[in-house]
Amino acid sequence: MADEVVLLDTWASMFGMRVRLALAEKGVNYDYKEQDIENKSPLLLQMNPIHKKIPVLIHNGRIICESAIIVQYIDEVWNDKSPFMPSDPYERAEARFWVDFIDKKTYVTWRKMWLSEGEEHEASKKELISIFKQLEDVLGDKTFYGGDTFGFLDIALITFSRWFYTYETYGNFKMEVECPKLMAWVKRCFQRETVSKTLPDDKKVYDYVFAWEKRLKSNK
Amino acid sequence: MADEVVLLDTWASMFGMRVRLALAEKGVNYDYKEQDIENKSPLLLQMNPIHKKIPVLIHNGRIICESAIIVQYIDEVWNDKSPFMPSDPYERAEARFWVDFIDKKTYVTWRKMWLSEGEEHEASKKELISIFKQLEDVLGDKTFYGGDTFGFLDIALITFSRWFYTYETYGNFKMEVECPKLMAWVKRCFQRETVSKTLPDDKKVYDYVFAWEKRLKSNK
Repeated sequence: MADEVVLLDTWASMFGMRVRLALAEKGVNYDYKEQDIENKSPLLLQMNPIHKKIPVLIHNGRIICESAIIVQYIDEVWNDKSPFMPSDPYERAEARFWVDFIDKKTYVTWRKMWLSEGEEHEASKKELISIFKQLEDVLGDKTFYGGDTFGFLDIALITFSRWFYTYETYGNFKMEVECPKLMAWVKRCFQRETVSKTLPDDKKVYDYVFAWEKRLKSNK
Repeated sequence: MADEVVLLDTWASMFGMRVRLALAEKGVNYDYKEQDIENKSPLLLQMNPIHKKIPVLIHNGRIICESAIIVQYIDEVWNDKSPFMPSDPYERAEARFWVDFIDKKTYVTWRKMWLSEGEEHEASKKELISIFKQLEDVLGDKTFYGGDTFGFLDIALITFSRWFYTYETYGNFKMEVECPKLMAWVKRCFQRETVSKTLPDDKKVYDYVFAWEKRLKSNK
């Protein structure tokens, strides 16, 4: 029986992009159902009643939520090619630690910078840059976070690169200046067809965020 | 070469208890270094510069942080006995989802209830109870969350039972009344020697929290 794979997602989400990229790496076909996160569908609320968030993967009727957990699930189910996880338990723990770090720090800091002004804006901009600098240090001189392999942490972080133009525009800084080695890693990732074909245009992400901000302000 | 295992921990922490319990389940000997979380040691700050939190496991000089990640690491390194993780990828994803749910919801909700009064206190008390009710629903009629096996989610949740007396006292409710099936599961867990010998007395946890609150208030 062929696998039935459905993804509830929103095109601009860096968390949703992780799942699309993981499925592309494994060569899995799926049915994509775009979700409006400002007006949640009954399907989304039914599939993820706990967090009410995209992405949600539905695999042969079984529901998996939370992007980092979905990516690990995809790695474990389609385990015949492109392993995401290092074979060494310590390296696996390290990859999980940094993905968890990204999940705890990045979105919340960006959101603070986006929606604040003055001192709070400046402080969260500084923090956002320092998060990426820390992640640049973790990469060191490796080709990918997974060493020679494009792995779990690579998948979890590269999707944020689609938001860098937005971060730069709202924060008035340049990632190329702040994190040149991380930006070289982004370019290496984009040499992979899975990455360049799966991830959306970064200017379109900015337009999406700009339009969203206008709606937020008009609803105040 | 014998394994050198060191744990930086605080005795009353439900997150630290997870690691102690996981090590007990695997029969691993370790050197325990109690940490004062109100006055962090240079060792802790050096070992976990990112989050500056216990627990930290140091295994043959390699540092692992974040309790859920440490428990998975222990399961993967000492893999010859008592597997914590289900063999089915979907069940593994489910266990990870609920551990992540506990980590996102429980401590922050308890803290809000603990340190607030009036409406906020009542709302967070309701929320705390509803979290445990949801977890009770997940258990259903199974012996353990891992089915017949005392697994990852069992380890991650049972340590919170040492705080139930504290939650009840501050919130003026009874877990036995709110979540009788969950409390029956707690009793089953405590029939295991690893659990009953590893986890501390719940009244001592309350005394610890009460003394901590007094210090917080006198520092205001």
